[in-house]
Amino acid sequence: MSRKWLIKNGTFVVLEPGQSVIKGYMLIEDDVIKYVGESCPEGEEETEAFDGSGLLFSPGLINTHGHAAMSLLRGYGDDMELQTWLQEKMWPMEAKFTSNDVYWGTSLSVLEMLKGGTTTFLDMYDHMDQVAKVVQESGMRAVLMRGAIGLCPEDVQQMKLEEAVQFAKDWHGQADGRITTMMSPHSPYTCPPAFIEKFVQAAHDLDLPLHTHMSETAAEVQQNINDYGTRPAIHLEKLGFFSRPSIVAHGVHLTDEEIEILARNKVAVSHNPGSNLKLASGVARVMDLQKAGVVVSLGTDGAASNNNLDMFEEVRLAALIHKGVSGDPTAVPADEALKMGTIYGAQSVYLQNTGRLAAGMKADFIALDTDQAHFVPYTDFISHMVYSAGPKDVKHVWVNGAQVVKNGSCITMDEERIRREAQACFEGLLSR
Amino acid sequence: MSRKWLIKNGTFVVLEPGQSVIKGYMLIEDDVIKYVGESCPEGEEETEAFDGSGLLFSPGLINTHGHAAMSLLRGYGDDMELQTWLQEKMWPMEAKFTSNDVYWGTSLSVLEMLKGGTTTFLDMYDHMDQVAKVVQESGMRAVLMRGAIGLCPEDVQQMKLEEAVQFAKDWHGQADGRITTMMSPHSPYTCPPAFIEKFVQAAHDLDLPLHTHMSETAAEVQQNINDYGTRPAIHLEKLGFFSRPSIVAHGVHLTDEEIEILARNKVAVSHNPGSNLKLASGVARVMDLQKAGVVVSLGTDGAASNNNLDMFEEVRLAALIHKGVSGDPTAVPADEALKMGTIYGAQSVYLQNTGRLAAGMKADFIALDTDQAHFVPYTDFISHMVYSAGPKDVKHVWVNGAQVVKNGSCITMDEERIRREAQACFEGLLSR
Repeated sequence: MSRKWLIKNGTFVVLEPGQSVIKGYMLIEDDVIKYVGESCPEGEEETEAFDGSGLLFSPGLINTHGHAAMSLLRGYGDDMELQTWLQEKMWPMEAKFTSNDVYWGTSLSVLEMLKGGTTTFLDMYDHMDQVAKVVQESGMRAVLMRGAIGLCPEDVQQMKLEEAVQFAKDWHGQADGRITTMMSPHSPYTCPPAFIEKFVQAAHDLDLPLHTHMSETAAEVQQNINDYGTRPAIHLEKLGFFSRPSIVAHGVHLTDEEIEILARNKVAVSHNPGSNLKLASGVARVMDLQKAGVVVSLGTDGAASNNNLDMFEEVRLAALIHKGVSGDPTAVPADEALKMGTIYGAQSVYLQNTGRLAAGMKADFIALDTDQAHFVPYTDFISHMVYSAGPKDVKHVWVNGAQVVKNGSCITMDEERIRREAQACFEGLLSR
Repeated sequence: MSRKWLIKNGTFVVLEPGQSVIKGYMLIEDDVIKYVGESCPEGEEETEAFDGSGLLFSPGLINTHGHAAMSLLRGYGDDMELQTWLQEKMWPMEAKFTSNDVYWGTSLSVLEMLKGGTTTFLDMYDHMDQVAKVVQESGMRAVLMRGAIGLCPEDVQQMKLEEAVQFAKDWHGQADGRITTMMSPHSPYTCPPAFIEKFVQAAHDLDLPLHTHMSETAAEVQQNINDYGTRPAIHLEKLGFFSRPSIVAHGVHLTDEEIEILARNKVAVSHNPGSNLKLASGVARVMDLQKAGVVVSLGTDGAASNNNLDMFEEVRLAALIHKGVSGDPTAVPADEALKMGTIYGAQSVYLQNTGRLAAGMKADFIALDTDQAHFVPYTDFISHMVYSAGPKDVKHVWVNGAQVVKNGSCITMDEERIRREAQACFEGLLSR
């Protein structure tokens, strides 16, 4: 028999043209939304219903770029020059990461994300079996990939490629379909062209999308020009990268020509406003990308450069920064920012059946407690969610039809143990 | 007999050179901090102590510019051109505000601010007796002033000036000293020079500081040049405004000469990053102001242009934006951003005995719950507070030595009633 449950008296974020919210009912069966509408769905008049009064139901937020295990380095290096930060702080510590560190670092991040209303995250890192294990146990949805840096001997390159392929084979479609995978060479500036081409071939062979970092800093763009005579988007197009469904992270420094390349190849961009600001990388040309038809979603990047994994903050930053920097107060309006954090996120990571509250979509959704001062008056719930809400307004979270956060507590994870183990991992990294 | 209480096992944000936090004890007697230090204060070994384990104690945040009653218009108009927003949305509604609206709108804001860790706010509005009443009842600290727009007949101008003076006389030093007042002509572009001069004279007579909006938008600066042949800071200096202790809000569009004028006259600037971004006013020259020696603090502005009153967000925006826009990742480091939200805030509103945890300061402080994923690992509490924390991490709040928020609930205000009355006020404004 199928699990079925009905929500009544709820306010549901649908973001349809002319209708941003619906007040009424939502019906879930197993892992799928069967109905969202103003009246009770037919035949369900006698079904016992969950009272959604005082709750705003939204699609779960989708974090399209990050490195979850890096939460172990939260606050370990701030307010520094990028190269100093990488060379003196991040890389020496990351080199010491064991699979145990990745397990607990990822657990810490998944806990923070779930409680903060994120239901899907993309993760590019190492020791990915551990990440998949956390996803499996926690009930979250994730798009996972072994990120490979190619600045190493050919046999090590080959080993990394095989790891990436094996990981994808082992885990794609696992955890009741909550895990999907991608192929992911780290970036054009850390991967020789031939190495990138091997990942493109593997993505073709496995029929998977591709992900990489691209044009985060002006310096890496210049290096690409020095090394390969051209800018990163042109370079990646030549290597066949965009012949696959793909998503690039950052895309801060782009020419008009590169934006046209991304649009023509239907490449999605994961905009990471918090991380880009904190590392002083710059401000991405989000309005130009959107005008060209590029799907722009949002990511937190790793917690070491953010320093939280709060997707409400990324949604709000997307809505605020581009207004302030362009001088246009109509830039990235609230509904567009929220779509970047939900439906465009789903499109970016090639999970077309998530990111919206509508019949036929996977039941990944969150309930915000609107009985709070910063949601009053009840003028515009989309505005309130984007400009006023925060991660701790999330009261309940469901992924794939199953509740994972209830009354603000994560019911699938041992919160206290995760904090303790993550702290121990950090101390271990410091002492080794 | 004096009230006395001791906190043990706490982590205290002191932001002293070379020492950002102290782990140990804090002693409060009545409304004053008597001691902060690693060891138990002498003679208090037998005193029963409050266990501060798992709590980060910080000075309360200080919001140096706003219009609290405007929370009634939260989400009523977003993503619009400034003039359309003002003329079609804000001004028609504000013209209908009664003292009842101001009472409940301010209550809504004070509730949000207190629960979010703000212990002092500056408020410039109308019906200020109502605002003072809310401050008196809620236990908050505030710097209040009747903001006066001078685009009206002379008799109305005179009435506003008299109201402002009377308000200051009635309320300065009231509510156990929690209320102080200033004189506040609204702005150079809404007040004729002679009207501003009258406020300056009143500030001299009453020995009060002055506050005004200045150079928020490029358009108002241009209007100042058109009307008076000079830019706002030069104009205000000529009118004697800076002969009093003063604080200007926004200061987005400033020349080097104007920055020098502010520095020479020791004028404080309330930087409002969230509002400035949302209204697309621009990005203030915060680093240049600080380099020149100007005290820069933080304000939310009214909730209609923010849209919350979350000072953690303003602190974080101050730390993030100036890095991203300048390209310098060392700009506005975490400790500086937190000082802007605390000690510089106190200096800006001329409350020199608040804004720090140190012996002799007023006991205005907050306790954050650090037993949460986004505070792990325990690397750097200042970084965590600035880059990762949010308003709902605030567990307890004390103002003037008295607890006002306990376990996340405001114990001095009726939360449910305030939400209900504020909603009713909004609906009344819509229907009138």
